Amino acid sequence: MLPTDEAEHLVRVLRLGAGADVEIFDGRGCLWRAEVIEAGRRGVTVRLVEPGEAAPETRVRTVLAVGVLKGDKMDGVVRDAVMLGVDAVQPLVSSRVEIAPAALARRGRVERWRRVAVASVKQCGRAVVPAVLDPLTFDQYLVAGGAGVRLMCVEPSAVGGKAVAVRDVPPQAAAHVVVGPEGGWTPGEVAAAAAAHWVLVSLGARTLRADAAPLVALTALLATWGDL
Amino acid sequence: MLPTDEAEHLVRVLRLGAGADVEIFDGRGCLWRAEVIEAGRRGVTVRLVEPGEAAPETRVRTVLAVGVLKGDKMDGVVRDAVMLGVDAVQPLVSSRVEIAPAALARRGRVERWRRVAVASVKQCGRAVVPAVLDPLTFDQYLVAGGAGVRLMCVEPSAVGGKAVAVRDVPPQAAAHVVVGPEGGWTPGEVAAAAAAHWVLVSLGARTLRADAAPLVALTALLATWGDL
Repeated sequence: MLPTDEAEHLVRVLRLGAGADVEIFDGRGCLWRAEVIEAGRRGVTVRLVEPGEAAPETRVRTVLAVGVLKGDKMDGVVRDAVMLGVDAVQPLVSSRVEIAPAALARRGRVERWRRVAVASVKQCGRAVVPAVLDPLTFDQYLVAGGAGVRLMCVEPSAVGGKAVAVRDVPPQAAAHVVVGPEGGWTPGEVAAAAAAHWVLVSLGARTLRADAAPLVALTALLATWGDL
Repeated sequence: MLPTDEAEHLVRVLRLGAGADVEIFDGRGCLWRAEVIEAGRRGVTVRLVEPGEAAPETRVRTVLAVGVLKGDKMDGVVRDAVMLGVDAVQPLVSSRVEIAPAALARRGRVERWRRVAVASVKQCGRAVVPAVLDPLTFDQYLVAGGAGVRLMCVEPSAVGGKAVAVRDVPPQAAAHVVVGPEGGWTPGEVAAAAAAHWVLVSLGARTLRADAAPLVALTALLATWGDL
């Protein structure tokens, strides 16, 4: 039986019924071709037909840690990050984010991003649903554990030329790609990151829009590592 | 004196007047810091104060040739391509584009994309305004001249594994990055491109949304060439 959300999507949006061929995935890497057996008030039942082939996962495990953007821009950021193959998205409430963690929770934003992640998985052919983690403040994230080097994307002008170019970042087994919100990082945040031995990375000389920067950062790193 | 469009933007949107500090560029690489002398009915006059520093241009000269997307999605594609540093955008009417060149002209779409390009130049700090060329059909583009290797982005599954990965594309002096519309290329278009010795390039194993593919392609190639 499909979960309620997916059953409703199948019946109301896709308008499919008994006999339809569908693909089913468990969100952890298994994908099957299946046939709808029953689609009615009590839910949707499918019969698994044969294993299918999901889009492969990246070799490097990436977490996109991103300052929460204004309005609904995070929807696009989550959608694109999932499409490129991230393992997880970590929303950050840094100094220049204008919404508090409690307000994010109250407005159901995180649940919304989780639905966006599932929808993007369907579109891009993966069978793994990346986690959208509970938001952390920058200070919480600074001391949070977790595998992987932390690559903080910065404006070259903000760090006195101390940032490395993307193509000089050696391949990693796991990486956090850390991208700021509109307005970027405060000098204190950059200093704290440098003190914690994060790697400061430049995304180039032209100023990127905040909602495009995560996609540019992930694409540039994955392409450099041969893992697009 | 500023051109009429920019004068109106300065007065009505930015709400600036005499004495304001602004940056002025000529669209061909020169940027100056300037002061508004007069802003009134007869237009806006500025006085050049000193040369400013524009974001540097890429070393490789890139043209984004892209199948026209539905709705207003081309606005975002043009905006992002300008931000990444393209020299020009060449809209293509390929087989799976659902709008005719004449209809594009009638609806003023090309003029709109040119305004988007100017707005994006302001945002990203360049002083060069890339050309948005008149749309061509795929067949016209196939025989059109112009410098640079043509890199056609394809789904690996559509070409039987004959595509090269982005990071295996050697650096170029000039390149056309050719990206399809929703639904991609027809087999005939791919065959014609291969016969014309275009390079078939894969953007990876996960399916990209059509409106994200140009940004991913440009970012991946420029990052690979050290030219982001």
